[in-house]
Amino acid sequence: MAEPAEQRHARHFQEELEQLKTRLLEMGGLAEEQVRVAVKALVDRDRELVERVLLADEPINKLHIEIDGRCFTLLALHQPMAVDLRAIVSAVKINTDLERVGDLAINIAEAARRYAQHPPVKKLIDIPRMASIAQSMLRDALDAFVRRDMLLAQHVLDEDDKLDSLKTQIFRELLTFMLQDQATIEPALDLILISRHLERIGDHATNIAEDVIFMVSARDVRHHADESQPLR
Amino acid sequence: MAEPAEQRHARHFQEELEQLKTRLLEMGGLAEEQVRVAVKALVDRDRELVERVLLADEPINKLHIEIDGRCFTLLALHQPMAVDLRAIVSAVKINTDLERVGDLAINIAEAARRYAQHPPVKKLIDIPRMASIAQSMLRDALDAFVRRDMLLAQHVLDEDDKLDSLKTQIFRELLTFMLQDQATIEPALDLILISRHLERIGDHATNIAEDVIFMVSARDVRHHADESQPLR
Repeated sequence: MAEPAEQRHARHFQEELEQLKTRLLEMGGLAEEQVRVAVKALVDRDRELVERVLLADEPINKLHIEIDGRCFTLLALHQPMAVDLRAIVSAVKINTDLERVGDLAINIAEAARRYAQHPPVKKLIDIPRMASIAQSMLRDALDAFVRRDMLLAQHVLDEDDKLDSLKTQIFRELLTFMLQDQATIEPALDLILISRHLERIGDHATNIAEDVIFMVSARDVRHHADESQPLR
Repeated sequence: MAEPAEQRHARHFQEELEQLKTRLLEMGGLAEEQVRVAVKALVDRDRELVERVLLADEPINKLHIEIDGRCFTLLALHQPMAVDLRAIVSAVKINTDLERVGDLAINIAEAARRYAQHPPVKKLIDIPRMASIAQSMLRDALDAFVRRDMLLAQHVLDEDDKLDSLKTQIFRELLTFMLQDQATIEPALDLILISRHLERIGDHATNIAEDVIFMVSARDVRHHADESQPLR
């Protein structure tokens, strides 16, 4: 017996939605790898790795446009409701966040290239640590999206404080170097900028986690919307 | 004679869409005002203005959530097609961009507060110029959205180069100060960060302009998707 049209339509929709998720995970994997390689380029003072990051931006941009197109098609052809609608609008936002993470990896690679033109300011420990936290946050946020896992999304939100305090610590340490030795000013500035790029990558992971919580619960955790706090 | 149900539904949709645009313009006005006041706080070394910016973040965050809700309602209840669908998805994205502009104004205000604790490094001319360009870009991008004006959106994209070159110029000048006089290092760092926040505000205006071009033409100008350039 032939499958009824409505049922076929619904099955087709779920298949398309799965493909969308797969593509988003792929995009997340590419963006995370860019961050990893950019920070490795910084630590190893490796100019070839810098070039590799710069060249790998194009596939991310292509995927960004493809995913956006998939979201529009799903919205236009299937007119989804409730959690499915929220999932697709979340996918549009997550896609934008991941594309920005890719851009930030480019910024890190460019700063790494400049940094390698000066003697090293210090042994880099906190910046790779920030990178590894930011990468985990990204991975967890995307896992939380795919599995609709609120607890994991909440875990991502909690991790963001670590990045903030590392960023502040790095800033203070580098400021001391800059005040003591004029020759460190230029390279230290690049390290400060890199720590801020990593902080922003964490912010994008946070955005994704917030979208997941909204998607699953239809509850808006941004700006403490559910609390009566006058200021954040 | 009573209006047919379908016609009433369509009229209601257009009214809701108009309200959405009005709210987005309101959000844009608030965000732009925040940028203006934050930079005025910096130039005038005015601590009260800093506080005013910090307090004014809350209404923007409320409006952000409200606009997001309106977009979801429109998508769920009216199942719009083609240009209307693109307009609503663009509104979701623009809303996010405007909220980030608000966050960046907060960052500028906080840096302005720190900057006022040191003697001025220099007369501030280029930073207010960057702010005024970024504000115009925001205003034009939103006007372009409301009027579906591709030319105006293209104008916004063209303006972004000015911000980039001002940022580079500011960086070079401040680096010279830092290398000459250790006492300028901390305040000059804040000016460098502020110039980068302003550059990012310009990036958000650029995102909005790109969304407008996509909405009107269904053509994706991001990442030079319509050109055969291997790298941007």
